[in-house]
Formats: sequence, structure tokens, C-alpha cells
Amino acid sequence: MFKQPNNIIFDLPKWIIEYVNNRTIFTNDSDKMAFVIKASQRNVDAGTGGPFAAAIFNSETDELISLGVNLVTTQGMSILHAEMVAISLAQRKLGSYDLGAEGLPMLELATTTEPCAMCFGAIPWSGVQRVVAGARDEDARHIGFDEGPKLKDWVAALRERNIAVSVDVKRDEAKSVLENYLKASGRIYNSRES
Amino acid sequence: MFKQPNNIIFDLPKWIIEYVNNRTIFTNDSDKMAFVIKASQRNVDAGTGGPFAAAIFNSETDELISLGVNLVTTQGMSILHAEMVAISLAQRKLGSYDLGAEGLPMLELATTTEPCAMCFGAIPWSGVQRVVAGARDEDARHIGFDEGPKLKDWVAALRERNIAVSVDVKRDEAKSVLENYLKASGRIYNSRES
Repeated sequence: MFKQPNNIIFDLPKWIIEYVNNRTIFTNDSDKMAFVIKASQRNVDAGTGGPFAAAIFNSETDELISLGVNLVTTQGMSILHAEMVAISLAQRKLGSYDLGAEGLPMLELATTTEPCAMCFGAIPWSGVQRVVAGARDEDARHIGFDEGPKLKDWVAALRERNIAVSVDVKRDEAKSVLENYLKASGRIYNSRES
Repeated sequence: MFKQPNNIIFDLPKWIIEYVNNRTIFTNDSDKMAFVIKASQRNVDAGTGGPFAAAIFNSETDELISLGVNLVTTQGMSILHAEMVAISLAQRKLGSYDLGAEGLPMLELATTTEPCAMCFGAIPWSGVQRVVAGARDEDARHIGFDEGPKLKDWVAALRERNIAVSVDVKRDEAKSVLENYLKASGRIYNSRES
């Protein structure tokens, strides 16, 4: 008999709300990225997923809208990269599958590592109007993660769609979390090809 | 005070189990694709999402593992393309975030329209070892859907990763569902650029 789940539920780690600790307003890109990078380390320390975090901020007020982390291994779904989690949380919170919809403020995605092929492709559909990234693709590949078959000039491809992009924001700190993860022999999934 | 959901739940349409009607074994690609295309039309008729469906099959036994449909507008999340839903359902059903894991049979994804940039990027992470597609990118674009910034030779990029690809399987039938949707003035989301 054919059976499949009637719904899919994925849980967010309980530490997130405590980690945010009501800190909702930020000052600039570095401040936001430091906060998101610390969350990526916390995700590893808590054993709740891979060394990646991402958040959605209101670009006009610098307010935090959602904080997501990588949940692939712990929630058992390959699509649950940090960016996908942050985007989905923000869409549910704001009640729109399009974060660029009329009536919403300009929203941006901050991610500790440049988006992989999947997350890159998800960005235009999400409605965010700006992307801020920390570590580079090559920093993730350096520790054995695969960024996938992505357009070489992914930054230009997003800009062509009127999505602003800033890279290398606190790259060294973001890279450190990746390197710590490798040293601690963290699980590198999706590494079939390497 | 900072608030975001503790979990995300997305529901599958109730008609899916009835639609499958315990038909779990298929004979060939055309048979599988006809079944998935009919589900894409049913998704439109039932008002449960966009004109797209996708399924995971066991490549060895031709058994249906999961059937997903596009749920973007009805579940309020831009990541819920049919392929992402089918992949996630199969991963939860089989208990592995990697459908290519040891101990699992060879699994394949059948999708009524060639994958967009996001779903293309999700395929290598999913662990499926084969992709079968119906309508082409250009057929989706023809009715106003945007396939996103995808590598031009996405088929070659997947084959390089040892993922087999068959395209144009029942293309005309798959395309008809898209054209019917346009005629019925279905909602074209993600069309900011067009």
C-alpha cells in the first residue's frame, strides 16, 4: 500500500531564541555578520547541524526577522541549508512566500558562507533584495564541503535581477568556524564527489 | 521581543493518497511521467498549488516512493517546488537525508518540467541518481514562469556528477498542463522580472 507523510515538520533548535536574547536591532553589516557567525559556531557546539547559519534582516531598520541554521543531518532533509531555513522562517513569520511583496520592507539575507548552487537558485524566488556573505565558496570547499554546480559569476547573476550582493564580510571569522569544524572532525555530508 | 516559529510544518494535499490509489508499480519512463503529469493537473484543479508535480521512484523496481506537488502559494514558502517536496518526502520516508546512501536502492526523480535553478542545485544534495523531465525550461518560460539563473548545460553538469538525465519524456502532455494553466489565468508567481 502506498504511504507517505501527510506533512513535513522540521524543528528549530531550542537554543536559538535564548541565543538571540531579544537582541533584534543591529548597526551594520559587520555587526549582523558577527551575530550570524556566532550562531553557526553555536549550531556546531550544540550538535544541531553543520557549521552554517543565515538570517533575514530588515534592510531599512536593521532589525532581525529570522535566524536559521543548517539542519540537514539532524532533521534528515538535504534541502535544510541555513539560507533555506532562514528564508522559510521569515516567509512564515511575515505571512508571504514573497519577501519582496508590496507592503513589506526591503529585506536582506546574511549568510556565513556564500550560497551553494541550491541556495543561490532559491534567492531570486525568496524575494530578498540584498545578500551579504561571509566565507567564500573556496573556504567551504577547503574543508570538504561541495558548493555544487553554480554559475561562476553568481554575484553578477543576482545583481542582474536587482539583488544587491556584498561578499567577504568578516570572511576570516566565518572561515574560522569552518576550520574549527574540520579540526573537530565534523561530519562532511554531500562529499560524494570529493 | 524576538519571535520566530519553533518549527515549520507544511501539509501535503489530501487528494494525493486517493490519487495514487495504491498504484505503486510502474512499467517505464512514459508510464511514470504520465502519472506525474496527471498529478500536476490535479494540483491545479484542486487549487492546491502551481502546475508542477514530481515523484521519486525506485529505479530498480519502478516502485513509487513519494509524490510531491508545487505548494508555494498555498503553503506560503518559496522553496516548496514540486521537486523539493518529493525529495523531502522520500528522505523522511526512507529515514535518510541522502537518497544515495548505502543500503538504499538506486532512486530517481521524475519531474513534469525541467528543474529551475534552485531545484537543479538541490538534485546533487538529494542523492538521487537519475532525473527524468517532461516539459522544457522554455515551455515554463513561455507561460511566464521564470526558471532562474541556471547553468546553460545543466544536463551535462548533472552527468558529470554521475547523475543520469533523460529529458523530453512526454513533453507535449506536460506542456499542455502548463498551457491550460495559462489559459485558466493561473497565478504566475516569481514573475517579477518578466
